[in-house]
Amino acid sequence: MRKVNLTEKLALFSDHWKPRIVGELNGQYVKLAKLAGEFDWHKHTNEDELFLVLAGCLVIRLRDRDVRLEQGEFFIVPQGVEHKPVADQETHVLLFEPVSTLNTGDRRSDRTVEDLQWI
Amino acid sequence: MRKVNLTEKLALFSDHWKPRIVGELNGQYVKLAKLAGEFDWHKHTNEDELFLVLAGCLVIRLRDRDVRLEQGEFFIVPQGVEHKPVADQETHVLLFEPVSTLNTGDRRSDRTVEDLQWI
Repeated sequence: MRKVNLTEKLALFSDHWKPRIVGELNGQYVKLAKLAGEFDWHKHTNEDELFLVLAGCLVIRLRDRDVRLEQGEFFIVPQGVEHKPVADQETHVLLFEPVSTLNTGDRRSDRTVEDLQWI
Repeated sequence: MRKVNLTEKLALFSDHWKPRIVGELNGQYVKLAKLAGEFDWHKHTNEDELFLVLAGCLVIRLRDRDVRLEQGEFFIVPQGVEHKPVADQETHVLLFEPVSTLNTGDRRSDRTVEDLQWI
């Protein structure tokens, strides 16, 4: 039961595409991540996923369109929907998703984070 | 499946202590609210509740201490924990909580919002 300062937490890591847990409630995690470049196409079979941009700009590519998120904008990718996050510049996001969510969804790769960490 | 701009949504209402829904995922709502003054002591028997301050300053009084949240800070009130939100100035917050959550928790009053609205 401690408050969380997003700026302080973001200062604790610098690697990209490796979310950190900063909160847990009702079976969901609140995570922070730093993104840069292109991630892999994937989907989450059973989990809806929220991306809220805290700094920078994130494009979430869907199979039929792109969703461009600036600071202060969020988008919910429904379960089962393929998506590919792309950040042309370093971008900081807050994620809200079930505890069961794997960052690469239904596809394991060297970018899959198995040992999700709290900060 | 539309993106949500928090600033644009906040411009759509001005009343205090009446959250609006701006997103839904995994049985949870994302809500926005404008707060000013003191709310009632209450608890949510079955729901954890997250307050993220977007603008202003929110004090969440607990029975044993106060938690002071500035912009960019969040706090999760665990289920069953009595709390009383207080905002000395107008404060804008984002809430994450289960769809079942009532704003006044276990106590109904004239501040209870029964007809929660999407914006």
